Amino acid sequence: MSVEDDEVSAPDRPGRRRTARLEAFSDGVFAIAITLLVLDLAIPVTQHSEQRLMDAIGDEWPGYLGYLVSFSTVGAVWLGHSAITDYLDRADATLLRLNLLLLFFVSFLPFRTRLLSEYITTDRAEGVAVTFYGLTLLVAGALLSLLWRYALHARLVRPDTGDEEITLLTHRLTPGLGAYALLIIVGLFQPVVAVIGYLVIAVFFLIPVRIRRR
Amino acid sequence: MSVEDDEVSAPDRPGRRRTARLEAFSDGVFAIAITLLVLDLAIPVTQHSEQRLMDAIGDEWPGYLGYLVSFSTVGAVWLGHSAITDYLDRADATLLRLNLLLLFFVSFLPFRTRLLSEYITTDRAEGVAVTFYGLTLLVAGALLSLLWRYALHARLVRPDTGDEEITLLTHRLTPGLGAYALLIIVGLFQPVVAVIGYLVIAVFFLIPVRIRRR
Amino acid sequence: MSVEDDEVSAPDRPGRRRTARLEAFSDGVFAIAITLLVLDLAIPVTQHSEQRLMDAIGDEWPGYLGYLVSFSTVGAVWLGHSAITDYLDRADATLLRLNLLLLFFVSFLPFRTRLLSEYITTDRAEGVAVTFYGLTLLVAGALLSLLWRYALHARLVRPDTGDEEITLLTHRLTPGLGAYALLIIVGLFQPVVAVIGYLVIAVFFLIPVRIRRR
Amino acid sequence: MSVEDDEVSAPDRPGRRRTARLEAFSDGVFAIAITLLVLDLAIPVTQHSEQRLMDAIGDEWPGYLGYLVSFSTVGAVWLGHSAITDYLDRADATLLRLNLLLLFFVSFLPFRTRLLSEYITTDRAEGVAVTFYGLTLLVAGALLSLLWRYALHARLVRPDTGDEEITLLTHRLTPGLGAYALLIIVGLFQPVVAVIGYLVIAVFFLIPVRIRRR
Repeated sequence: MSVEDDEVSAPDRPGRRRTARLEAFSDGVFAIAITLLVLDLAIPVTQHSEQRLMDAIGDEWPGYLGYLVSFSTVGAVWLGHSAITDYLDRADATLLRLNLLLLFFVSFLPFRTRLLSEYITTDRAEGVAVTFYGLTLLVAGALLSLLWRYALHARLVRPDTGDEEITLLTHRLTPGLGAYALLIIVGLFQPVVAVIGYLVIAVFFLIPVRIRRR
Repeated sequence: MSVEDDEVSAPDRPGRRRTARLEAFSDGVFAIAITLLVLDLAIPVTQHSEQRLMDAIGDEWPGYLGYLVSFSTVGAVWLGHSAITDYLDRADATLLRLNLLLLFFVSFLPFRTRLLSEYITTDRAEGVAVTFYGLTLLVAGALLSLLWRYALHARLVRPDTGDEEITLLTHRLTPGLGAYALLIIVGLFQPVVAVIGYLVIAVFFLIPVRIRRR
Repeated sequence: MSVEDDEVSAPDRPGRRRTARLEAFSDGVFAIAITLLVLDLAIPVTQHSEQRLMDAIGDEWPGYLGYLVSFSTVGAVWLGHSAITDYLDRADATLLRLNLLLLFFVSFLPFRTRLLSEYITTDRAEGVAVTFYGLTLLVAGALLSLLWRYALHARLVRPDTGDEEITLLTHRLTPGLGAYALLIIVGLFQPVVAVIGYLVIAVFFLIPVRIRRR
Repeated sequence: MSVEDDEVSAPDRPGRRRTARLEAFSDGVFAIAITLLVLDLAIPVTQHSEQRLMDAIGDEWPGYLGYLVSFSTVGAVWLGHSAITDYLDRADATLLRLNLLLLFFVSFLPFRTRLLSEYITTDRAEGVAVTFYGLTLLVAGALLSLLWRYALHARLVRPDTGDEEITLLTHRLTPGLGAYALLIIVGLFQPVVAVIGYLVIAVFFLIPVRIRRR
């Protein structure tokens, strides 16, 4: 058994354990952010308790749309994040910080979603709310891409990873950024179109592409 | 030491780690969904602070019933989910997405429970709230069953799993679906009966059947 | 390498992984329950925003006392729980269910704490709130003890565990039950005394006893 | 294979598993505390729904500042915590309790942040709120430092850790304490200056120092 093998199989190796904590902490933040979205959804309904329930649920469509977009986006970011850590051999100090920055914007999303759901039907303010929402998505996507590029640059990726796999994941993490930037501009004029666009991007990431593995 | 053994004992193997993250993220969402149920329970009581506490707690029975049904259901889904991942050898892209869809409905349950608890005593609306609640349970149950069937289909299950164990788990995950469908129809006419029926199904899943293991 | 050794070192063994998920899910519920306590603490203060802040914080002592007792109790139950799983070799179907039942009462504690904090200064109701609180603590303690006794009974404990260690943990988990039962009776007449008693029990469990290990 | 090796590679070893649960439980509390901060942020905005959204967001700057400081601080404490457990070989009873005490103050931070954000613009009370906030940060920092020193004292640190690495981490965890004490005094006279000071300390910890590793 070579020293190399031994290091790979030892779950106690410092670098390895730090990656495990990065994953556990990130999973916690992702799981809480995605579940907190429902808390915001629950509040408007109780204020309409006098109305008939079906009507009330119908009136709440911006809340449901915001919930759907944010759940899909957090889900897509989590998938990208788990794909990155899947290839990660170890974590260094900078990667941990970049990851914290990404989590900052992920944990910010339930607040942005509430803002979006509340203001999307108000003519004056919806452009602002949708722009803030889009910027948060853009930054989260950019940080996810940066996380992967830094991991490649700092040689934190497992040495046995094939070049094709690296190229595939790099491509997969990038195109969303341009689309987000475009939709932020669209959102200044047509907020609802932008929100539906954000949903389309998230769903696009969620549809599985058969990633070739041996 | 054969190559096979080596793969089994290496906790760093890509597929293996992705399964670990699927489990950690799912556990987070399950844990938050099951604990958030209590937040909804806490709110009505404070509105009755003028009443005598015993009476107030008595008046809150729909909240307690909804809490009990949802806790039992999330608990039962978690048990089924942990049984599935117990046999899982690795996770592929589609399984991760199916799991996200299941978590979507699990994280939706606290909202549905609040709706149920608030409307169950209102004649007009309770049928609608109970129907939505039942549909969420049905879809969650169906996705859990689908998760297992997909894992079998895509050969993601550990190769050393016995056929009897597979058949046992497949049977165990299925019957709830028919019962849920039946109770949704019952719930249109007798909402409280349907809710008690949902409790019975969850408790049925929670009662341990001695699963044969070598 | 014997078959026995191989089983111990394989982190993928079904029974082993189920224990890991039991731990992860339980840790999630414990972590959320212990952190949700603060949410209840935050609410009363905002209602007194007109008062001077120091006075308002002084008026909130029942909230702080309830927070301290519940945090200490959840902390003590988590310590007991981690001591039990530390000796656990594998989990069976019944243990997973007993654990779910324990988590039900743990996740119930933030609600009980809010009730306690709100009603402890109200003459009429405090006896009832403190009795419910004490019963929740008693049941949680009893279930923790039952979890350990079941694990011993069903031979789920690691075979290399010394008899003294088993006796020590069994003793450690038991005495609280009698004290809780006594304090529930005291609480009917002297609620504040009972709450301070619950704090003393939790702190007693939190003070480390030097557990002998090789 | 020596006995030593065997112990290192066995993820089931009691001490090892207890460390894993300490990490998982702590990650849960850190993740919830850092995500709960957003809940407090969301509340004020809805109360200003009549105002123009841009103005409302502008008025909320104390909430955003508090959010930024607390997120950075919890992030910095988590980084320090993960650095400590990275070097941890096993956990003993006292370390688990010290860790619970640290988590008590971490989970307390969202409440303190809400207090800070609400009172920072009120002349009378802001000194008190900022002092309480600073004391919580000071105690959390002191407990983190104590956790590491106790681990060194009780020989819980992995034996293969280099002396330089130990000295580096000890130095890294200490200086914040003096700065926090100084800022608490400053905060009695210039609350906003103190809060910006707390942000500077957190950001200082978050900027990566290249930690030398083989």
